[in-house]
Amino acid sequence: MPSHRPNKIMSKKHEKVGLWMVGAAGGVASTVALGVAALRKGLADTTGLVSALPPFDHLGLVDPGSLTVGGHEVRSVGILDSIQQLRERSNLFTEDLVRKCTPTLRSFQKNIRPGTLYGSSAAVRKLVGDSIGPRDASPAAAIERLAADIVEFRRKNNLDRVVVIHLASSEPIAPKATAHASYGKLERSLAKKGSRVLPASSLYALAAIDAGCPFVNFTPSLGIAVPAIRQRADEMDVCYMGRDGKTGETLVKSVLAPLFATRNLRVLSWVGQNILGNHDGLALRDPKVRLAKIRSKDKSVTPIVGGSPTTLVSIDYVPSLDDWKVAWDFIHFQGFLKTKMSMQFTWQGSDSILAAPLVIDLARFAAHEHRTGRGGAMRHLACFFKDPLEVRKHDHASQWRMLLDHFESSGTRQP
Amino acid sequence: MPSHRPNKIMSKKHEKVGLWMVGAAGGVASTVALGVAALRKGLADTTGLVSALPPFDHLGLVDPGSLTVGGHEVRSVGILDSIQQLRERSNLFTEDLVRKCTPTLRSFQKNIRPGTLYGSSAAVRKLVGDSIGPRDASPAAAIERLAADIVEFRRKNNLDRVVVIHLASSEPIAPKATAHASYGKLERSLAKKGSRVLPASSLYALAAIDAGCPFVNFTPSLGIAVPAIRQRADEMDVCYMGRDGKTGETLVKSVLAPLFATRNLRVLSWVGQNILGNHDGLALRDPKVRLAKIRSKDKSVTPIVGGSPTTLVSIDYVPSLDDWKVAWDFIHFQGFLKTKMSMQFTWQGSDSILAAPLVIDLARFAAHEHRTGRGGAMRHLACFFKDPLEVRKHDHASQWRMLLDHFESSGTRQP
Amino acid sequence: MPSHRPNKIMSKKHEKVGLWMVGAAGGVASTVALGVAALRKGLADTTGLVSALPPFDHLGLVDPGSLTVGGHEVRSVGILDSIQQLRERSNLFTEDLVRKCTPTLRSFQKNIRPGTLYGSSAAVRKLVGDSIGPRDASPAAAIERLAADIVEFRRKNNLDRVVVIHLASSEPIAPKATAHASYGKLERSLAKKGSRVLPASSLYALAAIDAGCPFVNFTPSLGIAVPAIRQRADEMDVCYMGRDGKTGETLVKSVLAPLFATRNLRVLSWVGQNILGNHDGLALRDPKVRLAKIRSKDKSVTPIVGGSPTTLVSIDYVPSLDDWKVAWDFIHFQGFLKTKMSMQFTWQGSDSILAAPLVIDLARFAAHEHRTGRGGAMRHLACFFKDPLEVRKHDHASQWRMLLDHFESSGTRQP
Amino acid sequence: MPSHRPNKIMSKKHEKVGLWMVGAAGGVASTVALGVAALRKGLADTTGLVSALPPFDHLGLVDPGSLTVGGHEVRSVGILDSIQQLRERSNLFTEDLVRKCTPTLRSFQKNIRPGTLYGSSAAVRKLVGDSIGPRDASPAAAIERLAADIVEFRRKNNLDRVVVIHLASSEPIAPKATAHASYGKLERSLAKKGSRVLPASSLYALAAIDAGCPFVNFTPSLGIAVPAIRQRADEMDVCYMGRDGKTGETLVKSVLAPLFATRNLRVLSWVGQNILGNHDGLALRDPKVRLAKIRSKDKSVTPIVGGSPTTLVSIDYVPSLDDWKVAWDFIHFQGFLKTKMSMQFTWQGSDSILAAPLVIDLARFAAHEHRTGRGGAMRHLACFFKDPLEVRKHDHASQWRMLLDHFESSGTRQP
Repeated sequence: MPSHRPNKIMSKKHEKVGLWMVGAAGGVASTVALGVAALRKGLADTTGLVSALPPFDHLGLVDPGSLTVGGHEVRSVGILDSIQQLRERSNLFTEDLVRKCTPTLRSFQKNIRPGTLYGSSAAVRKLVGDSIGPRDASPAAAIERLAADIVEFRRKNNLDRVVVIHLASSEPIAPKATAHASYGKLERSLAKKGSRVLPASSLYALAAIDAGCPFVNFTPSLGIAVPAIRQRADEMDVCYMGRDGKTGETLVKSVLAPLFATRNLRVLSWVGQNILGNHDGLALRDPKVRLAKIRSKDKSVTPIVGGSPTTLVSIDYVPSLDDWKVAWDFIHFQGFLKTKMSMQFTWQGSDSILAAPLVIDLARFAAHEHRTGRGGAMRHLACFFKDPLEVRKHDHASQWRMLLDHFESSGTRQP
Repeated sequence: MPSHRPNKIMSKKHEKVGLWMVGAAGGVASTVALGVAALRKGLADTTGLVSALPPFDHLGLVDPGSLTVGGHEVRSVGILDSIQQLRERSNLFTEDLVRKCTPTLRSFQKNIRPGTLYGSSAAVRKLVGDSIGPRDASPAAAIERLAADIVEFRRKNNLDRVVVIHLASSEPIAPKATAHASYGKLERSLAKKGSRVLPASSLYALAAIDAGCPFVNFTPSLGIAVPAIRQRADEMDVCYMGRDGKTGETLVKSVLAPLFATRNLRVLSWVGQNILGNHDGLALRDPKVRLAKIRSKDKSVTPIVGGSPTTLVSIDYVPSLDDWKVAWDFIHFQGFLKTKMSMQFTWQGSDSILAAPLVIDLARFAAHEHRTGRGGAMRHLACFFKDPLEVRKHDHASQWRMLLDHFESSGTRQP
Repeated sequence: MPSHRPNKIMSKKHEKVGLWMVGAAGGVASTVALGVAALRKGLADTTGLVSALPPFDHLGLVDPGSLTVGGHEVRSVGILDSIQQLRERSNLFTEDLVRKCTPTLRSFQKNIRPGTLYGSSAAVRKLVGDSIGPRDASPAAAIERLAADIVEFRRKNNLDRVVVIHLASSEPIAPKATAHASYGKLERSLAKKGSRVLPASSLYALAAIDAGCPFVNFTPSLGIAVPAIRQRADEMDVCYMGRDGKTGETLVKSVLAPLFATRNLRVLSWVGQNILGNHDGLALRDPKVRLAKIRSKDKSVTPIVGGSPTTLVSIDYVPSLDDWKVAWDFIHFQGFLKTKMSMQFTWQGSDSILAAPLVIDLARFAAHEHRTGRGGAMRHLACFFKDPLEVRKHDHASQWRMLLDHFESSGTRQP
Repeated sequence: MPSHRPNKIMSKKHEKVGLWMVGAAGGVASTVALGVAALRKGLADTTGLVSALPPFDHLGLVDPGSLTVGGHEVRSVGILDSIQQLRERSNLFTEDLVRKCTPTLRSFQKNIRPGTLYGSSAAVRKLVGDSIGPRDASPAAAIERLAADIVEFRRKNNLDRVVVIHLASSEPIAPKATAHASYGKLERSLAKKGSRVLPASSLYALAAIDAGCPFVNFTPSLGIAVPAIRQRADEMDVCYMGRDGKTGETLVKSVLAPLFATRNLRVLSWVGQNILGNHDGLALRDPKVRLAKIRSKDKSVTPIVGGSPTTLVSIDYVPSLDDWKVAWDFIHFQGFLKTKMSMQFTWQGSDSILAAPLVIDLARFAAHEHRTGRGGAMRHLACFFKDPLEVRKHDHASQWRMLLDHFESSGTRQP
């Protein structure tokens, strides 16, 4: 091994990485900000961080507490408001932790810039009210402004690189458009005032690409999953991944379904009922948004267990749960000699607490990828997503193996 | 690929294999017998049989419906009595299926020979009453008689090979003895009238070895897990595996625990409550038997999730459930920023229906191994057992990978 | 006590009562028929029959095995087909029971007459196909024909009285009409060919009244809950009750909700998810039918626990469950010092098995009421219904007390 | 009604009542103290207090926020330590609430006196260590000292009356002794140094009686349930009640079991698994203590549902749960035509939060009873206990009716 290698890893660890979150004052993003601050001050350990597991030790990923946090937000609410709300309504964090992290959170808050309402859903616009007007002349102008915000954040904070992660409210399923097929057509369409050719999530994706930053879509929204946008990213050698973070019920499904497949048990029905009370839940009251979410959640079972089971996924908004998500799944299956049997599980977790460390993981892994100069879909990160780009395997063990294999080989390939 | 290979596989498929079950009229063994009969008559499909999955197609395993069934039994009850009981009390099988399979089951019944009470637990002896006296002069004499029964079964039915699978009631934890360390010492000890140096399950293991048959222990009893017995098996080039079939709650645990490990979530407690109403449940009322079972069930969680979680496993006898087993597991875990969350599941399955196809799988895989002439522990079958011999990996995905890998390579190694 | 009283009770016990079911070959009605046959032959005990409990011993209710069964049905399917299907798909009943009851079921089958499709939902018409044409010239003509069927059934079988119980598929919520307010207007409207002023369930109610029979609506359909129809029933001194049998999840809710009320615990949310696979489930795929059912199911919680909890009820069709209904309820509540806690339950029951004995109970209680000559709503039967006519109390204990109190007093009032 | 009555109620409301808790710094007692302080300062509402429900408005019960709190404690830990621990480990209360109540809690802390270790279990003594030596010369001397503490508390705080509530750790089942039958014999026995004739809970009961105070046993320990002690209480006209507060799983059982009874469904098995992590859980690791607890928990089902169901109750100590108790119950029942069905529930509640308001209720109701001058068992408070003295009815609805009836009649009987 060449003698300069440890230094290189060292330098990676000490390079300065920025994490730019879209929806920067939402529940998940605020918890990320608090988590980064807590890790920096030694007030939190790395429980919940996949990237802190031993197989990734040799990668010299950036220190999670060293991340500089910023982002776009369309609402007038701040990180500290969200943290306060999560503490009071959802019984998360201690007052002591929040108090000690407040100065850092204030510094992060200064990095937050207004987002765009171009391409936003009615639900988001209702949430926002008049707090942010669509000041941009066109989607193209919005993209330019958003990209400039990111570039300015990188410059001002002397960051080696910035990872952009989309965490804003779920959008309704976006209609397909012919302009989606080529970047040229898309550009022309985006230049028109009032154009609705792309949902907001895709505008942020383009802004990230224009700023030369990796883009990760942690929501079920469209984001980068548009041929023309991916074409643009590939031209710019920008890496990206999505979509819809796999944090709870779907994670359990993707872990559990192989039991039935590998025992040759025939799944007859798999019914899931999800209830939650946060902003995401509120957005899901819009049937079109709900459909987008359900489509993404419903992908894991049938490809793993085969056959044609009845699969149902419901999501309902139950305000009293606040940030807590409760999921009940009932699995009806047939065994030997046509005998019907069943299994059911209930998952009770805090959405923000489950998602936040994965966002930090994705920032660390994407920064690492960006540093290697590789563009394209980060397929090795499939295990973080309900509906991973370009990946057909939905069972968790295979996706986990993909992650390990990628870094085993990338490890040996390193100079 | 040589042109004669298809014929060889053909010949394997058409070789005659016997399945000799210890506890031949118990719930699981009787369901195996019914299943074999049903498969033979085309009245059942292969749902529940792992060995019928596509990755094993190329192995040319023996046709499951062609198995000839026999075994040892200490009780006076017959296969048809057990089937009737399962039908009436546990609501399994249809009358029609049982009616059509009865002639075949009668022919299997004729292959059943009296077992031995040497080394039996008090619970078994109570169950048996006076139906079988300890007619054998010593454990050694019992082994000789039991082995002769198997040899006779093979000869009379023109079988190419016989697989012995132990399915008798769970035994209490067997005390260690110095004679366990060497086969010579063990032989001398077994020759003494009334010797209790080995539990019954180990006597059956020795009988199988003496008859040159693979031995598989599907129960938590000691069986072959005695150095001197394994030494004997190795000398005789006999393959073997155990112990304790992984059919329900423990299977779920070994599938689910990696979720927590790969997400770096800290499992604080994993509590399992099992209730069941069959003979196995009755045997478990003996605290020593229960302890043996619990030890075996409790192996899966901590090695996978790490740390030192509180793990509790309870098993209780609830007669009204008959052959149905209900397990409730509660998992308490800590995520990011010390937040405690939880998951719980309930598994409701029929013990016999879940176990029977796995017994058929083990017969098919062990017959295949025996045919290759390989002796020793069949480590690749780890995924079938709660406490697999010589295997440290308890997570289901790794064990499943071991099974696939073994046959991928064995496939290419074949002439 | 006068010496002739025992004789009177005796005579009641020996009077001949008919049970006329609308939807006579459906799952519930067929199970009622099988149950009556089984009781008659001593092949079943009275488990599940409320009316067989000690507090009702002194009433001398008609022997449940002595009921003569008949009814209306729009489909071409027969009782034995339904029984066979329940046995095969839902694993209910033994072959032996069905075999021994077949002659009696055949005799009941002969009492089944074609129903009407006037006022039927699209879902029912799709189910029925062309098996029954709307032969009747108008709803009025249909009522006349249906009433004549009941009268003929009573005459031919020498019955002292007949109770009509509505068990047909749930209908969509029926639109209100001005003609519902007065019987005169209603009559004129019903005389018009093709009139849709009343749903089918209400036509059957009018037929029962015209035949002088008690009418009980065990479904969420409109039935007798129309002012003009109740006016007509009152004029005819006919007793009646409804609606929507309380057999499973709603029963549990009405039993459990008082826990929170009497402990002054504040219910924040009560979410119920129901899955089922029978014809009722199929009908519920029609969103309007589902809404009718959900409205009825959603009545029990808030009136008992007070406040304004979030209450959600979902019902989904899961074919693999057949006649089995699985309900999961999650209750989120607040205790002292604003602490949030939770409870959840899963109910797994067979719809037909739970409903059938209650139908027999209602036949017995309604026959008793009819014999006393009392007309009007049988409010004392509230505990059998999700949405009891004229009764505001939804907690099970109060409704049970109403039933006991009614018969304690009616007992003392007897001659 | 006499015109001076409102004034009398007024005066009751303004009389000064003390609440003396045995185990004064335990989790439940500390939560009671915090709750009283919070109510006094208007920082908590009466959610969770049964006595705050409308049917008891006319009784003019003492204002819960006006209670003066004191008690006995054998450990060196204080109320504020316990509150801090509950906050940190069990995520209960806000820092803000605790901060604002701290001065009041400090004043309550000053009222705490050392308890006695006479008659304590080994588990308690291990918990306590050397913090309190058995300074008393004999149990009789201990009783005298304990009674003097209560009297002094009443005098010093100018209290009209004091209610003593036993909340200390569960004791093992106390052996019966002949001295239990008569107060004379008991007195002689208690005078002997080192006498173990009574467990600690009964010594506290005698101290309360000697001080002329109502005694309520909220634990499964023996307490007042000794003929000689009750004889003494009756002579002194002291009212009392117990035992074992019905706060969680048993409450659900007593609410739910009537469902099966009133529907004539045959309960085959009722299995309960309880896990908890507080001091009570730790004490329950002693099998004898556990047995005492289980006996008390196991009383509710069979008397309500009849027959001879298999009833099992397990309790296990799971430290990570701290003050949270999780109970899973599985109910196996048979319906019509011998069909087996099932129900299961999971209850997740904080022990202290559920128990504390009931302790305040009992103080208010017992103070009211004491004021009327009535002695003897307060049978009307049965709904608060798992094993209510002199009451055979275990279903919650009947017990609730008893409470309502008592105060309806007592209300009208008042001058």
